[in-house]
Amino acid sequence: MSQRTKIKALLESEQTNIEVIVKGWIRTFRNNQFIALNDGSTNNNIQIVVDFENTDPALLKRLTTGAAISVVGQLVASLGKGQKVEVKAKEIEVLGDSDPEKYPLQPKKHSLEFLREIAHLRFRTNTFGAIFRVRNTLSYAIHRFFNDRGFVYLHTPIITASDAEGAGEAFKVTNLDMANPPRVENGDVDYKQDFFGRATNLTVSGQLEGELGAMALSDIYTFGPTFRAENSNTTRHLAEFWMIEPEMAFYDLVDNMDLAEALLKYVISEALKHNADDIEFLSQRLAEEEKQKPQNERSEMSLTEKLQFCLDNDFERLTYTEAVDILKESAPNKKKKFQYPVEGWGTDLQSEHERYLVEKHFKKPVILTDYPKDIKAFYMRQNDDGKTVRAMDILFPGIGEIVGGSQREERLEKLEQRMDEMGIPKEELWWYLDTRRFGACPHAGFGLGFERLVLFVTGMGNIRDVIPFPRFPKNAEF
Amino acid sequence: MSQRTKIKALLESEQTNIEVIVKGWIRTFRNNQFIALNDGSTNNNIQIVVDFENTDPALLKRLTTGAAISVVGQLVASLGKGQKVEVKAKEIEVLGDSDPEKYPLQPKKHSLEFLREIAHLRFRTNTFGAIFRVRNTLSYAIHRFFNDRGFVYLHTPIITASDAEGAGEAFKVTNLDMANPPRVENGDVDYKQDFFGRATNLTVSGQLEGELGAMALSDIYTFGPTFRAENSNTTRHLAEFWMIEPEMAFYDLVDNMDLAEALLKYVISEALKHNADDIEFLSQRLAEEEKQKPQNERSEMSLTEKLQFCLDNDFERLTYTEAVDILKESAPNKKKKFQYPVEGWGTDLQSEHERYLVEKHFKKPVILTDYPKDIKAFYMRQNDDGKTVRAMDILFPGIGEIVGGSQREERLEKLEQRMDEMGIPKEELWWYLDTRRFGACPHAGFGLGFERLVLFVTGMGNIRDVIPFPRFPKNAEF
Repeated sequence: MSQRTKIKALLESEQTNIEVIVKGWIRTFRNNQFIALNDGSTNNNIQIVVDFENTDPALLKRLTTGAAISVVGQLVASLGKGQKVEVKAKEIEVLGDSDPEKYPLQPKKHSLEFLREIAHLRFRTNTFGAIFRVRNTLSYAIHRFFNDRGFVYLHTPIITASDAEGAGEAFKVTNLDMANPPRVENGDVDYKQDFFGRATNLTVSGQLEGELGAMALSDIYTFGPTFRAENSNTTRHLAEFWMIEPEMAFYDLVDNMDLAEALLKYVISEALKHNADDIEFLSQRLAEEEKQKPQNERSEMSLTEKLQFCLDNDFERLTYTEAVDILKESAPNKKKKFQYPVEGWGTDLQSEHERYLVEKHFKKPVILTDYPKDIKAFYMRQNDDGKTVRAMDILFPGIGEIVGGSQREERLEKLEQRMDEMGIPKEELWWYLDTRRFGACPHAGFGLGFERLVLFVTGMGNIRDVIPFPRFPKNAEF
Repeated sequence: MSQRTKIKALLESEQTNIEVIVKGWIRTFRNNQFIALNDGSTNNNIQIVVDFENTDPALLKRLTTGAAISVVGQLVASLGKGQKVEVKAKEIEVLGDSDPEKYPLQPKKHSLEFLREIAHLRFRTNTFGAIFRVRNTLSYAIHRFFNDRGFVYLHTPIITASDAEGAGEAFKVTNLDMANPPRVENGDVDYKQDFFGRATNLTVSGQLEGELGAMALSDIYTFGPTFRAENSNTTRHLAEFWMIEPEMAFYDLVDNMDLAEALLKYVISEALKHNADDIEFLSQRLAEEEKQKPQNERSEMSLTEKLQFCLDNDFERLTYTEAVDILKESAPNKKKKFQYPVEGWGTDLQSEHERYLVEKHFKKPVILTDYPKDIKAFYMRQNDDGKTVRAMDILFPGIGEIVGGSQREERLEKLEQRMDEMGIPKEELWWYLDTRRFGACPHAGFGLGFERLVLFVTGMGNIRDVIPFPRFPKNAEF
């Protein structure tokens, strides 16, 4: 195939009056003369100027929205507004037609709901092109961040027999005939005959296996899909989502917080650096969307400003206990504006409380630490007060919890005691306990919900719009 | 936590006579004086010199294989052989003991089979430390290769309702009560009541969804887990493995081959560059292992040489038809040494044939193209001969097929006709066909089996040893 130049490179080209080959999909064709062509390399289209007097009318008719074309032409300085260069077409070939009567994507604004139903085509819109380029930048920045620090990327298993954390929210994985499963005497399913010889499910977290790696390689991270069979039809939950879970030997909670804050700042700065056009576009999209809202619900900052603000400010760090004190004394609590009034110490914070702390009180990202042990997982390190654990949650404006982590309980006795209290089967996790038996050390880690990060950086409102093909109750299309 | 320096950095340090903090796990402690300490940052240990006369004997006793320790000491030039520097310990703290009577990893050679049973601890051996550091480098190199070329990393779905390619080899995913699933009138399972409102399974390939992305973003790649419920107990198959699947608009088969060859060469060169010590260690390991084999079965080249050889030579490109001609005329075929004699055109090549071509005839990686359409998937572009498709397989020495790809059939009519012939349900793949209805274009892609790549680069013999926690029939431990 003759080499083409991508549109991003053409638009940045310092050289003009050269012959170029450009390929892409037609966004619009106006006045039988100007094609706006996009190839996904950038949010910006390149203008193709068609010599319509010398072009076969049959060809002109085929230059419709959505058609794929190949153009040979001259890259020239543009007289038009908003573009430095354009291509004067010499030859145009239609590679694939797009019947304008049938093509679902018209050159007009479609609702996000409609686009979700044609998720196979929504990549071709400005909004989704921008989202998935930003998502790509964030992915790569995550790998780069950890690689630069000597972390080992560990692929923890997706299919697992351990459901220690799942608490029934894990999807089952099987190879049995579902209509007629083999059974043991008492009528239960005979999982011994299943593919893995036991009941298995989809992972809800790679953390426990990640810790095994950290206890030898020092610093590891996972970046893989995670699953919850939770019947949540919200804008914040998916049945299938991607998580990043670093796990570090010889780290305490402060090291853990420092790493998480540095990671978030780094990846946001990379998106601002590499996707300036995309984020500018998404920022304007959000501003348009917010115009529909009453004045007092609109953001004080634009998307770009909000991202920059995160980079420029230290995240506020305080304990759960301090947060509860602030919430108890807060105006909305006193005026009974919270749906769940904050009365005492020990209950979990609701989204409205987290948002108050982040968006009203501190007006910046917040790291809450040292939660009551009863609302946190068995593996978090117990504090000497007997009541709290070395947990941390990072709360982001508009998103709520984006990171959850802790220093891990490395003391075998304490860990076993907590597992007993919480009814976690120790025999199933023999391998996890082995790391406390042999060469245990202080260590810590956290989980970052990747789609929540993408939501934050793109300013989108629904998590189903930041993953290519979202999985949620009653939906597994594509 | 006071900052420690990783052992890799200490061993490379230009500065000596400085105080350092080093943490890690004891590999050996000999003569009550020399600790070999490893922290997973490198295959090499740092030697800690213990002042045993001034050290509490109770502490000395706890310095056992596998124990985690923290050392404050002086980094000094070493007089010992094979090391530039060592640490003269001032303070040693045992962070986590390791009872030598119970610790499964003794300072001796363990079999790979035994280590597979304690996969949670095998990261602590030289062999597996090296493997997983190399695996990490290969992962990152893949991301970097594509990122540098403007590809978008696309997370295609893991849970999917389409089983177009799976042919019954896909794992089922369900949230139903397996013992008592809801049923429709005729007794079949009522999947309408399942989580996604239909039967779902684990993906066998992200390609079809990847193509949707490429038809808007131009160049995408996936890198995610893939599953086969195939009852294969071989050294080459896993039930859960990772695949890289790039998909490129405006690429033909030659572009596709060029990209795949460049990718493989790049990632191998990155491993040689960043993991020289690891690969040297693995190279020696392999040489030791091969000493057990009869002379004529040993490799002619060491691992390092084999990797370098791949970089220095163009992959041999030929058609399936040419390959069959070579095989028919080959000595082993004439002497009836092949288990499956090569008689005519049209059958699939067996592993023994691939190995003959790669290891005996060409003695280098081979790309076979234009396979008979009847042994390839429905989506491959049909050649004008009516018999073959624009497929390509890359065959590697010792591994066999490492990449499988093709130019895709972009012509709607041809694609539908082939789907009909092969009994692929068109209505289920309406979204895939849409990309041929609207703005189709020539495009191509391939799949790279990540574990096979890791096998090749590490010189290991069993695929279960190059993924942290292998999944295979009757095994889902950890």
